[in-house]
Amino acid sequence: MNRPGVRMVDVAALAGVSAGTASKALSNTGQLSQETRDRVRRAAATLGFTPDARGRALSSGRTYTVALLTTDSSGRFSIPIMRGVEDVLSAGELATVLCDTRDDPLREQTYLRSLVARGVDGIVVTGRRTEPRARIDVPLPVVYALAASTDPADASVIVDDAAGAAATITHLLRLGRTRIAHITGPAHHRSAAERAQAVATTAGTALCGEPLYGDWSERWGRQATDLVLRQHPDAISCGSDQIARGVCDRLRELGHSVPEDIAVTGYDNWPVMALASRPPLTSVDLRLEDLGRRAATLLLEAIAGKPHHGVLELPTQLITRESTLGT
Amino acid sequence: MNRPGVRMVDVAALAGVSAGTASKALSNTGQLSQETRDRVRRAAATLGFTPDARGRALSSGRTYTVALLTTDSSGRFSIPIMRGVEDVLSAGELATVLCDTRDDPLREQTYLRSLVARGVDGIVVTGRRTEPRARIDVPLPVVYALAASTDPADASVIVDDAAGAAATITHLLRLGRTRIAHITGPAHHRSAAERAQAVATTAGTALCGEPLYGDWSERWGRQATDLVLRQHPDAISCGSDQIARGVCDRLRELGHSVPEDIAVTGYDNWPVMALASRPPLTSVDLRLEDLGRRAATLLLEAIAGKPHHGVLELPTQLITRESTLGT
Repeated sequence: MNRPGVRMVDVAALAGVSAGTASKALSNTGQLSQETRDRVRRAAATLGFTPDARGRALSSGRTYTVALLTTDSSGRFSIPIMRGVEDVLSAGELATVLCDTRDDPLREQTYLRSLVARGVDGIVVTGRRTEPRARIDVPLPVVYALAASTDPADASVIVDDAAGAAATITHLLRLGRTRIAHITGPAHHRSAAERAQAVATTAGTALCGEPLYGDWSERWGRQATDLVLRQHPDAISCGSDQIARGVCDRLRELGHSVPEDIAVTGYDNWPVMALASRPPLTSVDLRLEDLGRRAATLLLEAIAGKPHHGVLELPTQLITRESTLGT
Repeated sequence: MNRPGVRMVDVAALAGVSAGTASKALSNTGQLSQETRDRVRRAAATLGFTPDARGRALSSGRTYTVALLTTDSSGRFSIPIMRGVEDVLSAGELATVLCDTRDDPLREQTYLRSLVARGVDGIVVTGRRTEPRARIDVPLPVVYALAASTDPADASVIVDDAAGAAATITHLLRLGRTRIAHITGPAHHRSAAERAQAVATTAGTALCGEPLYGDWSERWGRQATDLVLRQHPDAISCGSDQIARGVCDRLRELGHSVPEDIAVTGYDNWPVMALASRPPLTSVDLRLEDLGRRAATLLLEAIAGKPHHGVLELPTQLITRESTLGT
């Protein structure tokens, strides 16, 4: 497994770069193109080159480990974010430790003490909700992803939910829909309130009735459908794919065709819901891997002594499917 | 954050144990009750006691880190397994590193080299399929979870899929069902073939037609329903919750009531499917957290110099709901 005879210069020679460049590529420092980093990493993998992480930690005072602290026990949001983080930190050289706090403050404190004691290089804090959260108190570089820190001096990367919701309405208006209803989750969830506000603003006079708040379930989608139908909508914008799936099911049962009679949009682009829905859902992809990549990039810059401050909002992407376009 | 003045004896005093016991509790060694370990950990958390993991790594040659190597990019199987692993290894003291190989052999090799170079204490290998897999070649303790190693000298912990499938059939037979059809995933998937075999054996003459192999989707469940209805079943056993959900939807559309006309069972007890199904599904829970706990326990024993050999099959749990019991 280990081939101790292989040196950095051997890796550099195979990759066609200088030893300094190879070292930077493998330690994820310096200004190098992704292509160069990948080439060096492939050369290192081919030769079985393994810099001793422990030895390096001793000499540099760093362990080259980044932690992802999450409250999302399902992994639905944290796993794609982690993939993005890993993309940037690179599989071999920087380990990403996933810590699931299970929404338990004591567990979070225990994790943080342990991470500080281990000397990790930095922490990405994420969760399954978009509400701004209290900052964590550690003497380490930290970046918040998905849920912003309430402290504007911190670096946060979040999804531009308002623009995502607005995009679904713009799409429906362009398709000629003039009576757009909105069904979403709990009013006290920031993601529900923010999306509903953007929907109302963008739809203007095309908004049909008040936004209906409930929960994030298919069941609520089915129940709310009966309520909004009294307003005779020609489109129903939903705050999540689960709600939208329930809406489609109920509309079909009542004999309404989607999208011919009523177009439906979801939110999240969660494959297990958006693709299994009948018809498949036009939805908003949160681009969580991008979010993870951006958070990791900011974290590396903070580790290098160039911390960012403030909240960065990343764009979502509208994915159009049969629930608005038909077949 | 750090309170360097706090010593192990302070933790021990607060927890009401000896310093030796406190040390064992925090390093997850020795024979202690879970209650004692928890009490010591709470005391350590209360006092802000942080043993320096790096310093300890130097003196003991260990980094107190365990890696979970997975091919399950969705996290659907690996996250609950990881929770179980963490339960045993304890949040604060042993870090669990999640490494997602994305089914890429080169990525797996790179991870393994890195983990060896970092001196992790051991590796739990898992995935999203139950097919036995080739052993990984590392000079470290390894335990395989969910998918067994093909080498019988290795330690593997897997789910007793055959017993899980048999339990659904026994449940249906006890409810008086006499014509049981089976719809499942691809025949070349071990989990489909093994469950189908157990269904056929347990059902005996109550098996209605041949098991139908397809894929793990709701769509296949709906399609296959039309096929099995020609055999006039009074129960349909499904190889996954997604298939069962599709079956329930199609039966309802055709005017058959579940479970009055036809009882339906799922498999996996995946909440987003089993609970959202109409009606909610009787299903087989794989108890993946148990699997993770057992794998971690075997790994700790291997790290302590007492490796296990062979395959350990853990029981599943039948969860009964309206799709067989009615309301």
